[in-house]
Amino acid sequence: MKHPVPGGLREEEEERVLVSEQSWRPCPKARRRLRGCLEWVKQQLFRVGEDWYFLFILGVLMAIISFMMDLLIFRLYEAHRWLYQEVGDVLVLKYLSWTMYPIVMATFSTGFSQSITPHSVGSGIPELKTILTGVVLEDYLAIKNFGAKVVGLTCTLAAGSTVFLGKVGSFVHLSTMVAVYLGKMRTSGDFILPPKTWSYEQPPMLVAAQAVGVASVFGAPISGVLFSIEVMSSHFAVRDYWRGFFAATCGAFMFRLLAVFNSEQETIAAIFKSDLKIDFPFDLLETFFFAILGAVCGLLACAYLFCQRWLLAAVRENRLTAKLLATDKPVYTALVVLLLASITFPPGLGQLMASRLTMKEYLITLFDNRTWGLLVPNASSLADPPSKDPWGLWQEWCHPSATIFGTLAFFLMMKFWMLILATTLPLPAGYFMPIFVYGAAIGRLLGETVALLFPEGIRSEGALHPVVPGGYALAGAAAFSGSVTHSISTALLVCEATGHLSHVLPVILAVLVANAITQKHQPSFYDGTIIVKKLPYLPRIRSRHMASYQVVVEEFMERRVVALAKGSGFEEVLAALDTSADAEYPVLESAGGMWGTGGVTGTGGDITGLVPILQGHPRWWAPSAEPTGTLGDNCAIEPIMLQLSPWTSLHQAHHLFELLRLQRIFVTRFGELVGAVSRAERLNPPKSVPSPRPCTKVSPYCPPLIIIST
Amino acid sequence: MKHPVPGGLREEEEERVLVSEQSWRPCPKARRRLRGCLEWVKQQLFRVGEDWYFLFILGVLMAIISFMMDLLIFRLYEAHRWLYQEVGDVLVLKYLSWTMYPIVMATFSTGFSQSITPHSVGSGIPELKTILTGVVLEDYLAIKNFGAKVVGLTCTLAAGSTVFLGKVGSFVHLSTMVAVYLGKMRTSGDFILPPKTWSYEQPPMLVAAQAVGVASVFGAPISGVLFSIEVMSSHFAVRDYWRGFFAATCGAFMFRLLAVFNSEQETIAAIFKSDLKIDFPFDLLETFFFAILGAVCGLLACAYLFCQRWLLAAVRENRLTAKLLATDKPVYTALVVLLLASITFPPGLGQLMASRLTMKEYLITLFDNRTWGLLVPNASSLADPPSKDPWGLWQEWCHPSATIFGTLAFFLMMKFWMLILATTLPLPAGYFMPIFVYGAAIGRLLGETVALLFPEGIRSEGALHPVVPGGYALAGAAAFSGSVTHSISTALLVCEATGHLSHVLPVILAVLVANAITQKHQPSFYDGTIIVKKLPYLPRIRSRHMASYQVVVEEFMERRVVALAKGSGFEEVLAALDTSADAEYPVLESAGGMWGTGGVTGTGGDITGLVPILQGHPRWWAPSAEPTGTLGDNCAIEPIMLQLSPWTSLHQAHHLFELLRLQRIFVTRFGELVGAVSRAERLNPPKSVPSPRPCTKVSPYCPPLIIIST
Repeated sequence: MKHPVPGGLREEEEERVLVSEQSWRPCPKARRRLRGCLEWVKQQLFRVGEDWYFLFILGVLMAIISFMMDLLIFRLYEAHRWLYQEVGDVLVLKYLSWTMYPIVMATFSTGFSQSITPHSVGSGIPELKTILTGVVLEDYLAIKNFGAKVVGLTCTLAAGSTVFLGKVGSFVHLSTMVAVYLGKMRTSGDFILPPKTWSYEQPPMLVAAQAVGVASVFGAPISGVLFSIEVMSSHFAVRDYWRGFFAATCGAFMFRLLAVFNSEQETIAAIFKSDLKIDFPFDLLETFFFAILGAVCGLLACAYLFCQRWLLAAVRENRLTAKLLATDKPVYTALVVLLLASITFPPGLGQLMASRLTMKEYLITLFDNRTWGLLVPNASSLADPPSKDPWGLWQEWCHPSATIFGTLAFFLMMKFWMLILATTLPLPAGYFMPIFVYGAAIGRLLGETVALLFPEGIRSEGALHPVVPGGYALAGAAAFSGSVTHSISTALLVCEATGHLSHVLPVILAVLVANAITQKHQPSFYDGTIIVKKLPYLPRIRSRHMASYQVVVEEFMERRVVALAKGSGFEEVLAALDTSADAEYPVLESAGGMWGTGGVTGTGGDITGLVPILQGHPRWWAPSAEPTGTLGDNCAIEPIMLQLSPWTSLHQAHHLFELLRLQRIFVTRFGELVGAVSRAERLNPPKSVPSPRPCTKVSPYCPPLIIIST
Repeated sequence: MKHPVPGGLREEEEERVLVSEQSWRPCPKARRRLRGCLEWVKQQLFRVGEDWYFLFILGVLMAIISFMMDLLIFRLYEAHRWLYQEVGDVLVLKYLSWTMYPIVMATFSTGFSQSITPHSVGSGIPELKTILTGVVLEDYLAIKNFGAKVVGLTCTLAAGSTVFLGKVGSFVHLSTMVAVYLGKMRTSGDFILPPKTWSYEQPPMLVAAQAVGVASVFGAPISGVLFSIEVMSSHFAVRDYWRGFFAATCGAFMFRLLAVFNSEQETIAAIFKSDLKIDFPFDLLETFFFAILGAVCGLLACAYLFCQRWLLAAVRENRLTAKLLATDKPVYTALVVLLLASITFPPGLGQLMASRLTMKEYLITLFDNRTWGLLVPNASSLADPPSKDPWGLWQEWCHPSATIFGTLAFFLMMKFWMLILATTLPLPAGYFMPIFVYGAAIGRLLGETVALLFPEGIRSEGALHPVVPGGYALAGAAAFSGSVTHSISTALLVCEATGHLSHVLPVILAVLVANAITQKHQPSFYDGTIIVKKLPYLPRIRSRHMASYQVVVEEFMERRVVALAKGSGFEEVLAALDTSADAEYPVLESAGGMWGTGGVTGTGGDITGLVPILQGHPRWWAPSAEPTGTLGDNCAIEPIMLQLSPWTSLHQAHHLFELLRLQRIFVTRFGELVGAVSRAERLNPPKSVPSPRPCTKVSPYCPPLIIIST
């Protein structure tokens, strides 16, 4: 104590020097060490190229938005319910209050989102799917769509179960927009991924964003990732798996956490928590009924997909509706919602389809663990407002003159076309939730029927266990939504959303059966929309005929390719731009002296960014100035990465297009450019594939490609 | 009735003609219609190229094998337990019966499997991973390994928790062997996939088979698919998703079904069914402890992976063990198992590590929903045989002179190195299950500690809910096994295996934290084994430095490529075969007259199957006969599909190798073959990537490629 270490002395002196600034901060040594530690932790966590904090922000942000939107929608819905109760027993007033509210909401949603940007309309998943295949849709992911979509979606959902639309798809779109915006902010920092690598590899952020979209709606992290992969991508890099999981977990966690903070739940739990019996979930013999349920869902999904595509096309072709949709979208929305709302009017047909329930209440009632056929409803339930008590909610499904079988069947019959009609509305919405509810109703109906047929349970030996119709509702929801979207992970989604895992095997069984039927006969909901909207689309080669494996690139490649010589100047580039509207041109290097069919020596690369250079370079635009530079000198020529040979097979080329997200690839023969294959060419051959090889018909390498040179 | 339809008459007449043969079959018309129907159904279901029945057979077969093996292992284990009880209280006899049995089993397993085929040793997952990247490992998937592996694995597992090994990995290998065998049987039918497409696309059957392997062990279909994808592949085609799901569902269903038939369970339920409280699974503040658990698991996984790789290499390098492993594998096994068994001897150290429990009982006890710290054990438990009652099993963890904290900590400490030692044993085994159990023990210890710290529960406001240590055990199992294997889907696996979903969010949180730590510092268990075993392996480019994006193919490609001219005959082909051991040679087409550096015109294609043609063609082997044919005439030259250009970047080339499962790709410059890139080249550049671009050092295109021509 009496002989302090000299180092300590010097430090003390230093401290004395700094005492005027830091006298109010104790323990300078400990602080310095702590600061060093923090610096190290920061270095470890925020390393260049790491993006977990970005994913974290994305997940939390989307969860907050989702929760806030749910809260707002709930308040708006409560207001509607209050209004409907307050107008008293005058039927006209009741009718007006029932119909006007959703009409106003939906019309405002249409008008508002359309007036800001037409990109905010619809679910957005078909467009995102197209973007993920490598197509650039300008402005589709711009942040300016965000506000329009959020406000529009809130209004759409506030219109309630009358319009019968959901929020999953739109949330995926919103989440992707946020991710792209955050990504732009991030790349203004020190790390920029080279553009070409980005275009070949799957943008990992987009996949994570889609997972967040699903997870923050259902609070289901694992199935969020899986569903978004299944619906969006054709190939998936396992390397990017954790991003999706991390972001989705953050989103789901935050979403459930907010529910706890808002005192909706005591702790983190499933969103549609069901109390299905866990001791004896289902008997073995019931798997047979689950398979039948899967088949029913598959067939109904086929019918639904066919009708949906037909109506979507019909609405666009019909003169009246086409005109309305072109000029007066809000009027179209108002008319359709008026029709839908009139049918769901509770004192009218609505009483047969439990129309006073919200989407969430629909699901909670359908996943109920009781057997409705065995319950006795209160007679006076119809006059009352819907019960606040979740146990009493199911009474909405009861009607004095119809059994619950009648109401469920009527619900299914009416909602089938109402659902399809609602998908034609030009407003921001998701189309997954209604399908999910519809499937749950199918399952419930079948489950109640089975429970009616075997009131004592199925098992012949041992103890009898009653049938649980709620399990069928789970399976129906998963099977119908899975087959409409061509995905299997809805089986897990239903488990995560209800927190109930013991039915997982029969649920997967039903989903697989339903998918087997639908995938064979109809494109998925999203593919169907892509077809109707005529978005760029790489169809699958469905033919497994051996002849299709013999079709080679040279039979369907485009031979008319506009190419530039490396030595070409301003005029040639201008001529090339006049001749074609390609995004990039191959640049040929002249090694021999003559251009033509014979002695051309090779390809050099593509010019991306030819146009900006043309515009930006003053010499190009001043005709008086001498165009001194050539293409090779002035433009950034990007080397070509891949070339196909004319003997590459159709299947191989297709696989490459799908895998590498290509738009266009050049075909070379002995180094000579002979053609190009783009998505447009790729679209056609599959139709004519099963025909025998038309090799002899095509004369080789004529008409030749156009080469622009001096 | 009096004027029957003429058609009907004629049919009746026909029937009368056939009456002699078919008189004993009623309703010919209905039967005919039924037969037509069945024919149609058959056509629909068994269409050419469809393979669901194949997947079904695969799933069911593997489930039966898995179940039968479990049954047999249980019987063998019971026999051991009986023997151990029957020898009475003589300590030497007890010791001998405890140690001899596993030694005999493990030694037999080693000797038997080694004597039949060395390929049956180990888990097989590292080798499968290598095969999935496109490398051909001869005979590794041959069906003759099957028997050896099944018998060996049964004996290994019958040695019980002394050896502490599992069956997951081996089952994946078994399942893949069956799939390949079934696939061979199937392709003898009418549908053969062209070989080249097969090699570029991911073999869908293999992925499905791996999913079946996991699913038929855990009865967990969804996580089976996900886990096998994460562990095995780098990219996944969503198109093949359903195959995995379908096969895994069949496997899991059958596996659980057999348990019901065997009266082990009343109906289909989770394999390690736990009765964790579902009302209030965990408090929000507990997520903090789950994150800590994840960090602990991650750090321990790092230590485990490091030590495991070190020991695996050390055993191979140490003179004594290397000699034993080379010549007397059974002796090595016997010695190691003797050591392990001596330590787990129940009257010795074994009483501190609950060594009388089986692997399954370990899991059941660790996932117990009670808080062990609050239970009072029977004093006399150690002398008794382990309780048959699952509720009493936990008493194995109690010791009069140590608390359960002591036994758990001792278990963790000892098993750490025993586990690592066991992985060096040369016998068929899986290494996932021990990791899983170890993780569960980590979680249990931390959970019990938290329960001790907060005996009244954590929540400060509202009702107090006690801590559930079983939830921590779930999270620990998922986090530790996930971080050792670098996979996230163990979070779902743990839920599916226990049928308990309400802890899913904290479990994923722990898994993500653990993975974040381990993936940064250690290669996964399987990658580590691949490195130690020196299997072909495509490392990830870990550098995100911008300079690494500027490295192009021409800097690291192999310039010495042996090529053949299209016109070359027998001597040239022989010379090429002498010069190099390539699997395929590029064939050049001569358009100019001179071969050399200048006027070479182009590449033609590869010859696969050059060697068989050489062998099969009599003219090639009879030196007296005139070699009239040229390469172009006699051999099937497969057209080249893809060519790289010298300016393709390292990242792009790596991506292509990974995505297309390439082994070797040729590089052309203006159509001229200038080099090749194969995995050997691809292995080296990543190490030197961060250095500045060494472009100028490399002289372009010298040493030139070797072209063999007449």
